[in-house]
Amino acid sequence: MKHITLPLVALLFSTPALATEPARDLAWEITEGLTTEVGQRQAGTEAEARARDWAVAKLKSLGLKNVRIEPYMMPTWVRGAETASVIAPVPHKLAITALGNSGATAAAGLEGDVILYSSFDAFKAAPEGEAKGKIVYVGHAMRRAQDGASYGHSGLVRRQGPNIAAKRGASAFIIRSIGTDGHRNPHTGNTNWEQGVMPIPSGAVSNPDADLIERLARLNKGPLRIKMLLTPKFIGQQPSGNVIAEIPGSDPAAGLVVAACHLDSWDLGTGAIDDASGCGIITDGALRAASAGTLKRTIRLLWAGAEEVGIHGGNAYFNAHKAEAHALVAESDFGADRVWRLDVRLPESAMPLKDRLAVALAPLGITPSKEIAQGGADIGQFVGAGVPVIDLQQDGTRYFDLHHTPDDTLDKIDPVQLRQNAESWGIMLRLAANAPEDLLTGQAKR
Amino acid sequence: MKHITLPLVALLFSTPALATEPARDLAWEITEGLTTEVGQRQAGTEAEARARDWAVAKLKSLGLKNVRIEPYMMPTWVRGAETASVIAPVPHKLAITALGNSGATAAAGLEGDVILYSSFDAFKAAPEGEAKGKIVYVGHAMRRAQDGASYGHSGLVRRQGPNIAAKRGASAFIIRSIGTDGHRNPHTGNTNWEQGVMPIPSGAVSNPDADLIERLARLNKGPLRIKMLLTPKFIGQQPSGNVIAEIPGSDPAAGLVVAACHLDSWDLGTGAIDDASGCGIITDGALRAASAGTLKRTIRLLWAGAEEVGIHGGNAYFNAHKAEAHALVAESDFGADRVWRLDVRLPESAMPLKDRLAVALAPLGITPSKEIAQGGADIGQFVGAGVPVIDLQQDGTRYFDLHHTPDDTLDKIDPVQLRQNAESWGIMLRLAANAPEDLLTGQAKR
Repeated sequence: MKHITLPLVALLFSTPALATEPARDLAWEITEGLTTEVGQRQAGTEAEARARDWAVAKLKSLGLKNVRIEPYMMPTWVRGAETASVIAPVPHKLAITALGNSGATAAAGLEGDVILYSSFDAFKAAPEGEAKGKIVYVGHAMRRAQDGASYGHSGLVRRQGPNIAAKRGASAFIIRSIGTDGHRNPHTGNTNWEQGVMPIPSGAVSNPDADLIERLARLNKGPLRIKMLLTPKFIGQQPSGNVIAEIPGSDPAAGLVVAACHLDSWDLGTGAIDDASGCGIITDGALRAASAGTLKRTIRLLWAGAEEVGIHGGNAYFNAHKAEAHALVAESDFGADRVWRLDVRLPESAMPLKDRLAVALAPLGITPSKEIAQGGADIGQFVGAGVPVIDLQQDGTRYFDLHHTPDDTLDKIDPVQLRQNAESWGIMLRLAANAPEDLLTGQAKR
Repeated sequence: MKHITLPLVALLFSTPALATEPARDLAWEITEGLTTEVGQRQAGTEAEARARDWAVAKLKSLGLKNVRIEPYMMPTWVRGAETASVIAPVPHKLAITALGNSGATAAAGLEGDVILYSSFDAFKAAPEGEAKGKIVYVGHAMRRAQDGASYGHSGLVRRQGPNIAAKRGASAFIIRSIGTDGHRNPHTGNTNWEQGVMPIPSGAVSNPDADLIERLARLNKGPLRIKMLLTPKFIGQQPSGNVIAEIPGSDPAAGLVVAACHLDSWDLGTGAIDDASGCGIITDGALRAASAGTLKRTIRLLWAGAEEVGIHGGNAYFNAHKAEAHALVAESDFGADRVWRLDVRLPESAMPLKDRLAVALAPLGITPSKEIAQGGADIGQFVGAGVPVIDLQQDGTRYFDLHHTPDDTLDKIDPVQLRQNAESWGIMLRLAANAPEDLLTGQAKR
């Protein structure tokens, strides 16, 4: 490839000259960079390590301070082959993906009769013995919701279902994807096993495949049989790490403002909405916040590792830094569609900050709510410990069309909405970092 | 599986009792049946044979006459493994699918430097020598169009590109999918080789993957290299066939009205919009047309085989039946979204039929046009021979989101729009079959 035709490439796909190109948003640049120059970033793998190196170089190039990797070890699971077919009453190929922490089938695959349940509740309520030796299929009826409310409930079948099926002696477990789209791209995501429970092969089929399975069952043309091959592996403790960077403030005693995202992604897509865009948004926002001069509080960016597979990064950060004074935590991890709602959890004495935020964010179309901010996974332990939280709630209407699928790619990011996110984070971080109120005294209640 | 829990299944996913269920449209019933009880129906395979058997049983059960299979043999190609990855400058998995008639890579795959072209025109205009030994990638900018106008032009790169690349000594050929969606489901479709040209491995990547390839090339971080594995096979002459059924008319001398669809599908999805729905629409329409009593002309339904892979069924029908008097041909093969436009090609003396159709179809929101009807692939030779044609043009705005992909599944059919199709075909077939005008005299011109 010495005579690689790069000049031709440059000609055919020329980037407009920098001089005339409108400035690209930093949030976009980070999202594009992570999804293109790194790609999928599964926790505990060399891809996540490359992402950390990319992140350190990027954050240093932006002039951020104290840029560093804080490493830790974590148990790691990696995907293998994944195929499935209905073999009776009618042959059909299925689009399936293994759930994180799924067990493996034999190398030749696994074949069995399927027992169907229409919901996780129906499965839990069913006689335990009837799943024995069967492939358990569980459907559900997740619907889209702007605030993502349907995920917590619908997601239980993924998080808890395989463990229950394994305890009941099922040979394998299949769910309708936890997703709101109609594409043949199933949604992965972690599941969990109780101590001592042997993982069984566990996967999700796409919504159209789930529809098909349910229609085939309704035909009443004899047993519904599926053959599946899942060959994931547990590869033991592997290195992961958080990437941290700071914009030092003038008053260390006022506590830290932590803005978090997660650097890892699932392996099926390139983690654009989950969560490269979050890292782009908080970083762009932090630099916007600091653009007019030194802030009172230090803003610390936490690009957490290994969120998807057990919040290992967030937990490692908490354990390492819980003794430091944290004035506020916030996270961007719900895609890149526009921020539409402001939720806070602040000490009563700091509620004027909410009022100032509401005024400043109103021109961006953001409405203050009476909801209590919940934060994100990577800051969950600080939230649990009573640290103040601000949520810039993103529109999640289409988030679960893409979440944990091969479709989580850069083209799904709307640059206009991404910029609105960065702008709102810039306003929020500036007002929070400069707030005259004491954010360190007393538990945040509302 | 003696104790298969079919009662449970029936309970969990119970179909509403027939007594209280609103009548399902026949068009839906056929579309659901073909996609569920048969599934993918690739031409020349046992799946297409099962589809013919299903069709014969269904058409007989509907009371249609002269239901039969007209068999023929055809050269057959079947898909194998299909994987691809970018291996430099950054590793990325690609979503790829082989084009119909693609050559195969070695069993260990094929690796090579990629030369990129932004369009088929750019590829054709490039110096022939520069593709030698390379993997040729060709992009394009297909955009959605209500009338599908962009397919004819954009599709040339798929139909002709691999042959040109092979003649230039390229090792393989990759296109951006001929599709308008943003999902990781590439679009297959046939390509063609000149006599004596050895097929090279030829595939389509999804639009997000094509975006990624183009961004990686723009990075200018060294050669773009791809590794790919495609193992399709040519399996020689295989049996295929057309399924034909009739509603006899009172005046055999007035000629036949042929309503066509195609029974085969690509193998990636279950061929819901392409073209199970077409078979549902014409059949439902024919029965609606005949519901008020015997028609003047015989309506002949042609559920053609092997359209996708070379119009073998349509050609076999023409060769077998060209001596019969055909008064009119029409085809439904553009999905199941609403009919929005009426195009005709009729002898001047029969133009009053167009006026009557326009009046009768107006309540369904259908507009007469000045376009000359072109017909569909399976009736193409009759169209070429000057037989009158009517096109009930369907809204194709989202057709190429789904066309030839794994996403062509039943959930993409809108029952309300499907019914509008069946209603409009019912009106059209009734007026055409009963038209007092002579449709057999003189070439149809407009």
